[in-house]
Amino acid sequence: LDQGESERAYDLVEPLHPADIADLFELLDPSDRPLLASAITDLMSADVIAEMNDHVRELLVEDLPAEDIAEIAEQLDTDDAVAMLEDLDEEDQQAVLAEMEPEDRAAIESALSFPEESAGRLMSRDFVAVPEHMTVGDLTDYLRKSRELPTEFWEVFIVDARHHPVGTCLLSWILRAPRSVALVDVMKRDQTLIPVGMDQEEVALRFQKYALISAAVVDESGRLVGQITVDDVVHIIQEEAGEDALLLSGAGDGDINEPLPQTIRTRMWWLFINLGTAILASSVVALFEGTITRLVTLAVLMPIVTGMGGNAATQTMTVTVRALATNQLTSSNTWRMIVREWWIATANGWGLGALMAIACQLIYHDWWLSFVLLLAMILNSLNAGLSGVLIPMGLNRLKIDPAVTSTVFVTTMTDTLGFFFFLGLADLFRLSA
Amino acid sequence: LDQGESERAYDLVEPLHPADIADLFELLDPSDRPLLASAITDLMSADVIAEMNDHVRELLVEDLPAEDIAEIAEQLDTDDAVAMLEDLDEEDQQAVLAEMEPEDRAAIESALSFPEESAGRLMSRDFVAVPEHMTVGDLTDYLRKSRELPTEFWEVFIVDARHHPVGTCLLSWILRAPRSVALVDVMKRDQTLIPVGMDQEEVALRFQKYALISAAVVDESGRLVGQITVDDVVHIIQEEAGEDALLLSGAGDGDINEPLPQTIRTRMWWLFINLGTAILASSVVALFEGTITRLVTLAVLMPIVTGMGGNAATQTMTVTVRALATNQLTSSNTWRMIVREWWIATANGWGLGALMAIACQLIYHDWWLSFVLLLAMILNSLNAGLSGVLIPMGLNRLKIDPAVTSTVFVTTMTDTLGFFFFLGLADLFRLSA
Repeated sequence: LDQGESERAYDLVEPLHPADIADLFELLDPSDRPLLASAITDLMSADVIAEMNDHVRELLVEDLPAEDIAEIAEQLDTDDAVAMLEDLDEEDQQAVLAEMEPEDRAAIESALSFPEESAGRLMSRDFVAVPEHMTVGDLTDYLRKSRELPTEFWEVFIVDARHHPVGTCLLSWILRAPRSVALVDVMKRDQTLIPVGMDQEEVALRFQKYALISAAVVDESGRLVGQITVDDVVHIIQEEAGEDALLLSGAGDGDINEPLPQTIRTRMWWLFINLGTAILASSVVALFEGTITRLVTLAVLMPIVTGMGGNAATQTMTVTVRALATNQLTSSNTWRMIVREWWIATANGWGLGALMAIACQLIYHDWWLSFVLLLAMILNSLNAGLSGVLIPMGLNRLKIDPAVTSTVFVTTMTDTLGFFFFLGLADLFRLSA
Repeated sequence: LDQGESERAYDLVEPLHPADIADLFELLDPSDRPLLASAITDLMSADVIAEMNDHVRELLVEDLPAEDIAEIAEQLDTDDAVAMLEDLDEEDQQAVLAEMEPEDRAAIESALSFPEESAGRLMSRDFVAVPEHMTVGDLTDYLRKSRELPTEFWEVFIVDARHHPVGTCLLSWILRAPRSVALVDVMKRDQTLIPVGMDQEEVALRFQKYALISAAVVDESGRLVGQITVDDVVHIIQEEAGEDALLLSGAGDGDINEPLPQTIRTRMWWLFINLGTAILASSVVALFEGTITRLVTLAVLMPIVTGMGGNAATQTMTVTVRALATNQLTSSNTWRMIVREWWIATANGWGLGALMAIACQLIYHDWWLSFVLLLAMILNSLNAGLSGVLIPMGLNRLKIDPAVTSTVFVTTMTDTLGFFFFLGLADLFRLSA
């Protein structure tokens, strides 16, 4: 379609929502993206850029001159502008900032001074705050007259003389109250304040828990410095919740638009570490080479013991990681969770162990071999259940993200001990053909 | 704390937000929950019940008489009331509905008539809709006078005579416009309408994509029948995104408050199916018992080939499942994704295969064995990459949720073929000690 027919492309793209245009760029082959961009220059609004996937945006933005980026950044809310600029390298960032209006530059520089993924990066500096003495009528008049307001806002913050928030008014309350009523009589005093340094994951959990639409952000001294709205948080909730699956699998951020060399590096590094685990498990098998030589059936059955352990451990580990991420698992129910997983592991170990032992007996007619298989499966199931719950919890207590690191440790436990239980017991009972 | 000292418990709980009280119930041991509930009866507002985890709520609600449940349901928004009632069995549901006011009952019955997890269940029937001819002043007067309005709303829907939505006004626009302006001049005509039968996952993706705060829900004939607000959607986004990790691991919905027997059933069923996979892999090993007897080192090295394949496949599979769930992967970039994974698999297979082959040579001083290991790792890496991307895509095309079923098929491929490649090549080259 983009082979010369740029006018037709323009007509097709024109009626679309900015978010849809952004999606279109992601679906296109990377080499076609600049073509489309130049065909629809005047549709390439700041909103389209803001909606794009990080990697796609980075590639497109890198090709633009600093003035153009500055112009786009000025049209965006502070938080979206920051998201665009934080991907650039230091030098380009300075060049863009130099091209911007002093006021916008100051806002972005102050946002960039907060740590990545903190409330300070996420918040917008455009919000409506009014003093305590106003009535509903005063506020309505102020809103009608003032030109500098954000186009969309959901609540008005009421602040005292030191700019500390004292309450908040939803717009629906203001609309329904008579003009003469004082704001302090309509406002809610109890509001969720977000400290500027709070991690974005924590911000998202708070929005979700208290069903917030927007919330005031305060600095260390308690002054109102910004607001966060739910539409910025929705992306984070989605990313953070989906991230666990990707991190547990070692696929990094798993973005299909990430440049290939970077993806290969991330994934190979993970596989390399896991090879270490596999080598450890192998050396346990090597210890029992003699035992396997006496009864080669052991080599046939051993993947069943470790496979079942690995799957059971993955279940427990995933549940634990998700429960930790959503703050459902705290010190007060840790013990209940461990006991719970112990019972699940016991049930699975006995149930599936017995099943496999019977099957083994029917095929190989070897009571001792079947007994060893049963015992190894019960032991490895308990090992899997406890590793799956204790390793993520322990890592979490050590302030290490359990989603990133649990899999390696848990697999090591189930594989290494799985082979050890099965082959060790076989050796102990001197099994042979 | 709950041993008799119910008054102290009351004082401690009183200052908490309903969402925090709900959390407290979840953290408590199941046997202590009714004790706390009876200690703080008057704090057990409808909001607390609405915020509770499904399983915890179900257990508590089951103990209450039908009148009490009806009373709670009447205080709730339709969507929260439906969430509470849909857990009950048919008979109890009817008993509760019989106790309710006719109007509330009708609303809930109509919500229950929509399929589970659809927009119809999610929407609230409390919204503000006004005719086209109104001015901003008319609307403000109407809002001030009317008693039947929801307490919180974010936009006003403008409807024509047939109750079809024609536009929407954010409250911030209304507040800032002069009284004499007609609503049709302030409103936005372009709005996202949600069909009443849309799946909740699709609703959530739409809210996220267009950064919506609320949206109108319309029936088949295009009439406005309800609204969905972002706070109801946030839970779904979080659940649906986090769900993939749990489904891929076979842990069901992975709720730590689920009754134990139900959890054991879900998990054991999954492990049972995976045992089938393990048995299949074992029988491949059994085919080559003779080969292993000639060179027992093969049994030592074979877990490395399948382990590496399994990990690589899990990475690819998770990325594919997430990309499908977030609509990032469509028919237009399918081919690019497959080629991408092919390159990643090639890089991993050669890189890590070479590494292991060198290590193998250093330890066992057997050129042919090292060569077989290299070849098997390259082949299994390609097998893993292609299975990881093609299996979820194929399942998705067959309208089967790839998160639920991919793991079994992908593991079968990497384990079975992994053993086959390694032992088959060893047999082909007649390796022996």
